[in-house]
Amino acid sequence: MAKGKLFIISAPSGAGKSTVLSRVMAQLPGVAFSVSHTTRMPRKGEQDGREYHFVDRTTFTEMIEQGNFLEYADVHGNYYGTSRLAVQEQLEQGLDVILDIDVQGAKIIRDAKEMDAVFVFLTPPDLTELERRLRGRGLDSDETIVQRLKNAHTELRSLGDFDYLIVNEELDEAVRMFESVILAERAKNHRHFTGKDIQTKVFVV
Amino acid sequence: MAKGKLFIISAPSGAGKSTVLSRVMAQLPGVAFSVSHTTRMPRKGEQDGREYHFVDRTTFTEMIEQGNFLEYADVHGNYYGTSRLAVQEQLEQGLDVILDIDVQGAKIIRDAKEMDAVFVFLTPPDLTELERRLRGRGLDSDETIVQRLKNAHTELRSLGDFDYLIVNEELDEAVRMFESVILAERAKNHRHFTGKDIQTKVFVV
Repeated sequence: MAKGKLFIISAPSGAGKSTVLSRVMAQLPGVAFSVSHTTRMPRKGEQDGREYHFVDRTTFTEMIEQGNFLEYADVHGNYYGTSRLAVQEQLEQGLDVILDIDVQGAKIIRDAKEMDAVFVFLTPPDLTELERRLRGRGLDSDETIVQRLKNAHTELRSLGDFDYLIVNEELDEAVRMFESVILAERAKNHRHFTGKDIQTKVFVV
Repeated sequence: MAKGKLFIISAPSGAGKSTVLSRVMAQLPGVAFSVSHTTRMPRKGEQDGREYHFVDRTTFTEMIEQGNFLEYADVHGNYYGTSRLAVQEQLEQGLDVILDIDVQGAKIIRDAKEMDAVFVFLTPPDLTELERRLRGRGLDSDETIVQRLKNAHTELRSLGDFDYLIVNEELDEAVRMFESVILAERAKNHRHFTGKDIQTKVFVV
């Protein structure tokens, strides 16, 4: 079986990333979600190994020292990281792995040039719409919303570093675009079939 | 409106290219088919400007001399060629243009490096299946089928030069893959939105 490919997806908070991802995961076969490690406590309803691998600080620090993370960050005193081994195991199974990380995490993985990853940026049509969505979901204070809009503004400066840009104006369309990116990457010559593979296959017949 | 992109599709005879293309053209908005010029006589039911632009030898030779063709070839005494102007007009309208040419024509366009084109190769799963399909459609003599299989064999050697490889094992799947290639190319950063475009758009808000 062909090896899978790593898809990094970044988006400003409120761009609709979770909804797009859950739809793609439900619809497209052969895709797996990469579960991050964190030292923060599980929230109500969260399950170890599903939302996150929940580990203590000692374990996480050991994993850092052993170079086990593709990227990690300290966010408000809690560690979050992507285990190289977990991702590689899924790729070896032939699964395309989706990694949902912020622009900074994406940059670390891009700069490391260790993984043959595809970088996808999901964006709302504009900041007015983003603000409307953030207010609409009623999760954040005014102060938090202003901070999120500032962050979005900063993150958007990085989108030139991404391979693909998907504008989430209409959900169905955004889902289709992300699925298309994954399918097109599968069709790339150096993927499932190299020239050699198909020629061998055909010549043997 | 963003400029369109040129998609070159090549396939061995019998790979199912016409069926895949007509389905994609019918389903996916924003895609146009490039109509070639030829000096051969129209067949029954063919219409000038639809299947081909039918021109006489003098006109065609003048077009060659004026450098009007992206590629052209003499096939059994008849000229076939792709007019640069016709393609560029469609691209300027923001349409993605599909150009159905053989491996040799694709090579000419690739080597010229004039067009920012995406090269797609459509292949049957293997030569046994190709032979089955060629016999099944009942159009060709045994001799022609043997020749077509030999040609396919030769053409398959070139598939490493193509950007995408689509295996037409199941029609719906092949159609979806080709549509995905077009959509993914639209999502590429340097296409509809460059980083600058979206940032400007967002900053202005």
